[in-house]
Amino acid sequence: MPDATTNQTGAGQAPGSRVVHSDESGGWQGIATLPYKRADGSWSGVTRQLLAGGPESPSSFELRYFELAPGGRSAHETHRHEHAVVVLRGSGEALLAGAVHALRPGDFVRVAPGDPHQFRNTGSEPLGFLCVVDAERDVPTPLTNDGAPSCSVDGDELSRPR
Amino acid sequence: MPDATTNQTGAGQAPGSRVVHSDESGGWQGIATLPYKRADGSWSGVTRQLLAGGPESPSSFELRYFELAPGGRSAHETHRHEHAVVVLRGSGEALLAGAVHALRPGDFVRVAPGDPHQFRNTGSEPLGFLCVVDAERDVPTPLTNDGAPSCSVDGDELSRPR
Repeated sequence: MPDATTNQTGAGQAPGSRVVHSDESGGWQGIATLPYKRADGSWSGVTRQLLAGGPESPSSFELRYFELAPGGRSAHETHRHEHAVVVLRGSGEALLAGAVHALRPGDFVRVAPGDPHQFRNTGSEPLGFLCVVDAERDVPTPLTNDGAPSCSVDGDELSRPR
Repeated sequence: MPDATTNQTGAGQAPGSRVVHSDESGGWQGIATLPYKRADGSWSGVTRQLLAGGPESPSSFELRYFELAPGGRSAHETHRHEHAVVVLRGSGEALLAGAVHALRPGDFVRVAPGDPHQFRNTGSEPLGFLCVVDAERDVPTPLTNDGAPSCSVDGDELSRPR
C-alpha cells in the first residue's frame, strides 16, 4: 500500500490533498510550531500549529493544535467567536465561565461566544488539543484572574484574523 | 475539582459552554449518532456525530466525527469545499485523487477542493476521525470506483448545507 504523502511544507499553505503523520511528541511533521500569543504574563508554556486555514485556504475555518507544557495555561480571555475543542493527549482542566472542568483525552469542549475561558495543564505530560475557529473572528479580550477585563490587549493572537 | 458539565443534549444545539466526555466506544455521550448519507451502495458501515455547528451555531464551520466499522468505507466523491481531518482511532486508508495513503491515529488529512476522496477501514477496529467543513458548502458529486461521476446523486449528505 503506497504512502507517498507527508507533505512537509505544511502550516496552512493549502498545497493540495495530503496526509501528515503526527510525530511521537504529538505534533505534526513539517508543520511549523508557532508562538501562541505575545508574551504578557497571563499565559505560559503554550505552542500552536496551524493545521488548516490561513491566507491560502479557501475555507471559512481554521484548525489549530495547541500544546500546553506541564504547568502551562492559555490566556484567560473572552470573545464573540466560538471554540470547538477536542482533547488529544494529557490531562488538565478548562475554566469555562467560572466553572472548572476536568479534561482527559477524547473530551469535546465547546466554548460558547462570550464565555470567559482558560485551559490549564495540571498533569505531568503535555496537554494537547485541537481547536476550530472561524477564520474571520473578533480579537479576544484578555481577562484578569477574577474575570475583569485586563488593561492590556497584548494577549491578542499573533496570527490575526484575516 | 468539580466537573459539573457533560451536557447531554448535544448534537450541534449550541446550548452553551460545556465539556462532553467520550465514551469507551469512541463516541460522545448524549450526542446523537446519525446516518452518514442515504444508502446508495457506494458506502457502508459509516456513522457520524455532529459535535459543533448546525442550525443553532453562530459559527461558519461544522465539526463532525465519523466512524467506519471494519470493512466500512465512505462514499467516493468530490466537491469544491475542503476537508480537514484528524484520525482519532483505528487504521485504514485514504484514497486522495487516486493515491492510497495509510492512516493511523494522529494523522492529519487535508482533502483539497475538487480532489476525489474516500476513507476505508482496513483494520479490525473502528476507524474514527474528526472532519471539519464549512457550514455553507456545495453538495458532493458521487463517483464510481474508477472516478467517473455517478448517475445518482442519492449519496448527498442527509445533513444538507444550510
